[in-house]
Amino acid sequence: MERIERRAFVRKAAAGVVGAGALSSCEGDGASNTTVQAGTVVSGPRVEWRLASSFVPSLDIIHGAPLRVAERIATLTEGHFTMRVFASGELVPGLQVMDAVQAGTAQAGYTAGYYYIGKHPALAFDTAVPFGFTPRQQNAWLYHGGGLELMRDVHAEFDIINFPCGNTGLQMGGWFRNPVGSVADLRGLRMRIPGIGGEVMTRLGASVQVLAGGDIYPALERGAIDATEWVGPYDDLKLGFHQVAGNYYMPGWWEPGPTLSLHVNREAYDALPPAYQEMLAEVCREVNYDTLARYDAANPSALQTLVEEHGVAVKEFPRDLMEAAWRESEAYLEDRAVESPEFRRVYDSFKSFRGTAYPYFAGNEQVYAAFAFPRVGASRTAG
Amino acid sequence: MERIERRAFVRKAAAGVVGAGALSSCEGDGASNTTVQAGTVVSGPRVEWRLASSFVPSLDIIHGAPLRVAERIATLTEGHFTMRVFASGELVPGLQVMDAVQAGTAQAGYTAGYYYIGKHPALAFDTAVPFGFTPRQQNAWLYHGGGLELMRDVHAEFDIINFPCGNTGLQMGGWFRNPVGSVADLRGLRMRIPGIGGEVMTRLGASVQVLAGGDIYPALERGAIDATEWVGPYDDLKLGFHQVAGNYYMPGWWEPGPTLSLHVNREAYDALPPAYQEMLAEVCREVNYDTLARYDAANPSALQTLVEEHGVAVKEFPRDLMEAAWRESEAYLEDRAVESPEFRRVYDSFKSFRGTAYPYFAGNEQVYAAFAFPRVGASRTAG
Repeated sequence: MERIERRAFVRKAAAGVVGAGALSSCEGDGASNTTVQAGTVVSGPRVEWRLASSFVPSLDIIHGAPLRVAERIATLTEGHFTMRVFASGELVPGLQVMDAVQAGTAQAGYTAGYYYIGKHPALAFDTAVPFGFTPRQQNAWLYHGGGLELMRDVHAEFDIINFPCGNTGLQMGGWFRNPVGSVADLRGLRMRIPGIGGEVMTRLGASVQVLAGGDIYPALERGAIDATEWVGPYDDLKLGFHQVAGNYYMPGWWEPGPTLSLHVNREAYDALPPAYQEMLAEVCREVNYDTLARYDAANPSALQTLVEEHGVAVKEFPRDLMEAAWRESEAYLEDRAVESPEFRRVYDSFKSFRGTAYPYFAGNEQVYAAFAFPRVGASRTAG
Repeated sequence: MERIERRAFVRKAAAGVVGAGALSSCEGDGASNTTVQAGTVVSGPRVEWRLASSFVPSLDIIHGAPLRVAERIATLTEGHFTMRVFASGELVPGLQVMDAVQAGTAQAGYTAGYYYIGKHPALAFDTAVPFGFTPRQQNAWLYHGGGLELMRDVHAEFDIINFPCGNTGLQMGGWFRNPVGSVADLRGLRMRIPGIGGEVMTRLGASVQVLAGGDIYPALERGAIDATEWVGPYDDLKLGFHQVAGNYYMPGWWEPGPTLSLHVNREAYDALPPAYQEMLAEVCREVNYDTLARYDAANPSALQTLVEEHGVAVKEFPRDLMEAAWRESEAYLEDRAVESPEFRRVYDSFKSFRGTAYPYFAGNEQVYAAFAFPRVGASRTAG
């Protein structure tokens, strides 16, 4: 079978249109080391999972992550292990993905841990906390700094095994109808910003609102809110916020390197053959990193489009706002640690890792970036 | 079979101590979707490869990358596809890995493209060029900016298919016996620095030498050279340069995000079943990203050790040196592009991508880093 045809075949299998047994031949074993023939190599059991995503297909990099997990697992298993991916609302509402996986309604879910801090406050660290880790630091902490073990312990309480599966990069600070001259301008400002970022914004005087993606644009247009944050240039451009709020602020200090996660029901996971478990872990690790690379390739030209074609003014948050945000963010995390020993256990690891990582990145990496980046092209900063 | 035992078994298989056929049973297919039993799922042909590395085992993150590729491929294929990894010099000298793969002496090699710019000047872009891409930019360019396709074309001339397989992060600027006060201090300075970085340092007046890893320390100790660069804190600490050259400079502008590559002999690759090819690609992508995460976890505490326990002074290259280095680096790349249409083809893609990426990272990412990183712990910068 030709390579191209074979891949199409595997995709069909993944989509469930190939009859049972079509890929079940067991050939090729015992070939010598030098002469190897192409052919079917996977003869494991057929497994079909439901995967509930918290996201909608228009967010094609984020929602694309579980689609890529499904596609790659189907490819590696030659269509024996498949996942049917449901967008937000198709199987369960987007914010109930964790519940659905815990209950076994879906064997897997794609979501953000910090949606569920009501269940367990330390789930915030699975995604992002204000002034937390950049993408590289988050990956280093999760995979090689003890972070993933801690997060596995937290998820185990919900019979879920979690896999980091999509880092989106530092978010932008969002869209403001009017310029922000100082932290005082946040007083009474009606901003759509969920999660811990919203908690800190409240401490800074903002009137925080939580709106679903589709409701933001009309609210901003009719003046029901003054500002909103979303993700970054590539995703923001699609929603058209620049048409109704022309000031695009940076940085998104409340989410320096947010990581989305694949949740897997423990019982479903334990029933997998070990090789399928290993493939799942391998693919999730790769998709986690790769999602960042996709954003890093897509965001720069999207920002260029926003600035050059739509006249968006990219601005830095004023220094006093940043100082106050740092202060209140640190206070918020300390307060949670006082309240919750479970939060503190992860917080201590986070803080210790950050205590070494930040000074290191402030050195070599930062010195390079500060010198080199501004030397190419026009600065995108105005005002 | 218990999970732990199974993994040990796979490791033994990978080491070649399990007889042919031991893993060849073809069971489990046709199981229902709900009841899945653990067991052997891979029944493909046995493949054993030789993998020649350009590195030595003491560089445990770099040389660990091909070891992890081999281990993970063996795990995913349940020991059916194994690779025996040879360190530099065991099968072929470290700088002849590409030749060995092209000739089929080894089916695979782990090396740095820029070792072979004598064969093809554009191979530099596979690893790093001065003032080129940071790790995130390099990954975005390779995987989602057309870079990998271009590098595949270059490698195809050598009957090699290349897989990015280990980003080491921005290198440090190296160890200097005496402080560097300005670019004028480079005149006549005897520095060990290979590759294009060495070419640019020569343009800046340095007397450049190329020494293998083991020869650097004694040369520095007896004063035969005045300075050397190596990799970064984690690897540098092991070689003990701080004992004979107390000034540790940053940044390593000649290698902002070097990527090491797995080379695979085309004929050996084509003989693989498609599922093994997919597993190899998947594992290499993951190991490429993961190598960076390992360095990002290891470098910060290594630098802390160098500063706090060994009294190393971490310093920034003076501004006039950086300006001159930028100028000469850009001139060097332009000169190569004039000489070689093959170089220009990749250079144009590189330059276009950098033209969008640098301004973007100069904005959001850089503004965040400049504010947040210095707020934690003591600055590691002296002098």
